[in-house]
Amino acid sequence: MSLPEPAAAPEPLGAAFLSEIHGQPGALRALLEHEKLFERVAAEALKRGATTVRMVGHGSSDNASSYGVYAFGLLPRWTALRDSIALTTYYGAELDLAGSTVVALSQSGRTPDVVDYVARARRAGAYTVALTNETDSELAAEAEDVLPLAAGTEQAVAATKTYLNQVAALGLLAACAAGEGKSFANGVRTTADLLESSLSGLESSARSMALPFASIGRMFVIGRGIEFGTAREIALKLLETCRVAAEPFTATAVQHGPVAALDPLFPVWTIASGDETLPAVVEAAQRVRAAGATLVASGAAAEELADAAYLLPVPAAPSPLHSPLLSVVPGQLFAAALAQAKGLDPDRPVGLTKVTLAR
Amino acid sequence: MSLPEPAAAPEPLGAAFLSEIHGQPGALRALLEHEKLFERVAAEALKRGATTVRMVGHGSSDNASSYGVYAFGLLPRWTALRDSIALTTYYGAELDLAGSTVVALSQSGRTPDVVDYVARARRAGAYTVALTNETDSELAAEAEDVLPLAAGTEQAVAATKTYLNQVAALGLLAACAAGEGKSFANGVRTTADLLESSLSGLESSARSMALPFASIGRMFVIGRGIEFGTAREIALKLLETCRVAAEPFTATAVQHGPVAALDPLFPVWTIASGDETLPAVVEAAQRVRAAGATLVASGAAAEELADAAYLLPVPAAPSPLHSPLLSVVPGQLFAAALAQAKGLDPDRPVGLTKVTLAR
Repeated sequence: MSLPEPAAAPEPLGAAFLSEIHGQPGALRALLEHEKLFERVAAEALKRGATTVRMVGHGSSDNASSYGVYAFGLLPRWTALRDSIALTTYYGAELDLAGSTVVALSQSGRTPDVVDYVARARRAGAYTVALTNETDSELAAEAEDVLPLAAGTEQAVAATKTYLNQVAALGLLAACAAGEGKSFANGVRTTADLLESSLSGLESSARSMALPFASIGRMFVIGRGIEFGTAREIALKLLETCRVAAEPFTATAVQHGPVAALDPLFPVWTIASGDETLPAVVEAAQRVRAAGATLVASGAAAEELADAAYLLPVPAAPSPLHSPLLSVVPGQLFAAALAQAKGLDPDRPVGLTKVTLAR
Repeated sequence: MSLPEPAAAPEPLGAAFLSEIHGQPGALRALLEHEKLFERVAAEALKRGATTVRMVGHGSSDNASSYGVYAFGLLPRWTALRDSIALTTYYGAELDLAGSTVVALSQSGRTPDVVDYVARARRAGAYTVALTNETDSELAAEAEDVLPLAAGTEQAVAATKTYLNQVAALGLLAACAAGEGKSFANGVRTTADLLESSLSGLESSARSMALPFASIGRMFVIGRGIEFGTAREIALKLLETCRVAAEPFTATAVQHGPVAALDPLFPVWTIASGDETLPAVVEAAQRVRAAGATLVASGAAAEELADAAYLLPVPAAPSPLHSPLLSVVPGQLFAAALAQAKGLDPDRPVGLTKVTLAR
């Protein structure tokens, strides 16, 4: 009779997720190697007068598109919208898309209704561009032009570095359209350095918050303007990796009803960046504190939120449009720590697969 | 020494809320008296070539705007978007709005950043239209043209009849732009009759569901396409009147992550209408059932969702674009019943006032 073999040390929960969060500075730098392709696509959109940007994607891709509304609105002053996929693919609405650039976001390039949307939009006269990690995917084949996400393979089901690169890519494309591609790219480079040097400090702060939140079932995440996409993405991470019912709101929308649901067991995560929306975010934070909610303050201007129980500040970015590349990271790291505290695996959440084929 | 006076019978919790839900057929009919104004505004938008519709509003007004995307997309085939208010009012982005019609939605006509947006959009060349219950409000004065919501005074803080009339008004404006105003208005008339005759049955069904949900803290509400605005509005009612963390998702988005948060104590309300999105909604319902969630099926095609624990069907509307006028009502009635079961007052939720002045 022999003793049982010692079991191999198991991979810690969320090892890929955490490693990909740490890989984000490198992923951003890899994206910048393709700057010329972004210049080319922006020039083509300008040449065609296709200055209405229709972004389509689901999940994290759709969250990044919330940022795109601001990047295109503030840099080339174009109207950008998160277009309704259902309007085109289910109802077959035939809109005139001659003045439109479609930016289709899908990490895998296989999201069925996004591929279908692109095929239809192209026939309707849009300039179609795929932004994907898989440049030989179905989506890439369907679109006229392809922009590589260049984030490297993502193993964890919950997206991190692909989200960050989508944000940077939309910002870079918008900047190229405004003739400011170079300075935006330099800002991304600086941001990658800032992120790299702050990751380990942020990780320990996030980790120390995990235990007090282990019994929390619901949260709001508040952002405004450029940071609303960040709020959406942090809420999604908490939902899919920590099973927390986290819902994103703008600083204004939360006061139009949702604030009535708050109590001390219903914490609110608030992203404060030092841009023009800060007074609105400060006011919303006061409202949620008055409702008794525990306040988590993150973002470069976290210290401006009085009475926060937890602070997760990030360095100030080179410009407001670079901020979201930093301010989402405490949320990712907190999700990793909270999932671990709850015994959940962000690399493989129950019921999810990396490529979602739902229409 | 005299005996104390007998106390007057207290008004039941949510009396105004419930009475306004029952007043919705009448509110719809009152709106239709203004059909000619809608024809006139649609003609003006056409004359100016202002065929990009920018809808702005918060809370229920923003939920109604989700419906507007489909009404304008399917009837006159115009691009309609829920525009970013922050882009204009906080960041001062100067977009060219010459080809745009702004539809500003505010029950009170006093929402500060909506008023500010309209002032700026008008200067930037947009055709600005206020859709409001208060036709002598600040918003009405700021806009070039005014469309009355005609819902009558709303006493409850939680909106019901003003939401329904916003949906009908956006549909009517879109129909007028497509030269189909008369038939759409007739459809609204038929819908008002259908609603009137089904209200009391829906109310008892909703009431019988309240008790089993009294301890529920979180829910998802799923709709797709034309009914996504309905999902958003039902979720908001549950948040503000019942303190349930209810989050709306499209049938597709829920599968891109959020489904991982579900369990048997996390019910999902699903709106199934008999239009082209039904297969997607059926598939999403199967996914959430597989995750163990209790399923509530509502909408005209509720019976198509297998394995639902609760059924709240509504009559089939004259057309898919009339459906949301019926399918939101079970959600309103359920919110009324659940609030009452929890001892909460939907007429005056804690921390809210009827006019939200937050920016």
